[in-house]
Amino acid sequence: MKRSPKHTKQKIVDAAAALFDSQGFDRTTVRQIACAADVNVALISYYFKHKQGLLEVIMMDYYELLFARLDTCKACDEQGGANVQLYRMIEVHIRFQSEMSQTTRLIQRELSVESMLGREVMSTYLTRLKHYFVSVLEEGMETGEFKLIDVDHVIIYLFAIAGFPYTYPQIVREVFYLEPLEESFIQQTIQHVHTVVRQILTPAVTS
Amino acid sequence: MKRSPKHTKQKIVDAAAALFDSQGFDRTTVRQIACAADVNVALISYYFKHKQGLLEVIMMDYYELLFARLDTCKACDEQGGANVQLYRMIEVHIRFQSEMSQTTRLIQRELSVESMLGREVMSTYLTRLKHYFVSVLEEGMETGEFKLIDVDHVIIYLFAIAGFPYTYPQIVREVFYLEPLEESFIQQTIQHVHTVVRQILTPAVTS
Repeated sequence: MKRSPKHTKQKIVDAAAALFDSQGFDRTTVRQIACAADVNVALISYYFKHKQGLLEVIMMDYYELLFARLDTCKACDEQGGANVQLYRMIEVHIRFQSEMSQTTRLIQRELSVESMLGREVMSTYLTRLKHYFVSVLEEGMETGEFKLIDVDHVIIYLFAIAGFPYTYPQIVREVFYLEPLEESFIQQTIQHVHTVVRQILTPAVTS
Repeated sequence: MKRSPKHTKQKIVDAAAALFDSQGFDRTTVRQIACAADVNVALISYYFKHKQGLLEVIMMDYYELLFARLDTCKACDEQGGANVQLYRMIEVHIRFQSEMSQTTRLIQRELSVESMLGREVMSTYLTRLKHYFVSVLEEGMETGEFKLIDVDHVIIYLFAIAGFPYTYPQIVREVFYLEPLEESFIQQTIQHVHTVVRQILTPAVTS
């Protein structure tokens, strides 16, 4: 049975993501990827040019899927106001990172090295991700749902707390004896962030 | 003038830390370290056996210094109660990570890869670091200064927010146009964490 090019490409991407994550990008060879994906080495060069090309595709797919999810939750909650929309976005963001935990860890690690690719990811994807949160925070400040706050520090906090358990799953497991992929852990994280964000953003009743 | 062995060892450690951070552990050779430290390659083998040995020394020095700082702030604030002590510890932890930003980034990155060394760092240093915070949180809960809370999630939050700006300084710079090593940024981070922690831990006046 002949396999479709789409199927083969996806198999290569999946094998590369798993290997880059577990052994690191530098320690992974194209030959190992070909072996894990059960394809010819030449096919990887044909589709992705080089190892770096594969990493770029992995990152692009990851962020495009995340943005698609954030768009859906934005469309759903338009009548709920900024409050409901922000809470939904926080949940979607945390759930996405746990669901894609392997790719999350891989991307976060690559972002801590100074590289051209890292810089491109920041200027395109992370800037766009930031703007999703900036726009809902500013909307809430305009309608008076939220206090006037420094949005940058709140968003840095959201990025930090949403990413940590999926960048360092072993720390959560071996230092705290918790399982970051378990539903109860995910729910507690979401709830924790919701509580903190509510306390930071809710205007005082008496001023 | 003859250089002391201590001076030479420190020069090798400093050169290795800088190279591991900027190019990554795998991309750094012992020859590059020798060249940057201006010593003979054989001397590195003599003192540290291999590249991995150097990384171990860097990590050990980092955590021992952090613990010494946390001990000092503990001794200082004994009459202030758990509240004062916790706030001081948060400040010391964040300031330490910014001051040692290069080593912080290097260690955080290595902790995201599955390795024997990473596992050892977690079981010895991170477990000990966690216990500094557990003990002050439990003390405060016993005296009634703090609400009864799930300490694990609070400490994961503290690790996440204190580490993020120094693991991803480029994200802070290129996505938020802020400078993570500037005093104003450090102060805002400390203040942000203090506010959040106060809101999570302060018992309600009326229950």
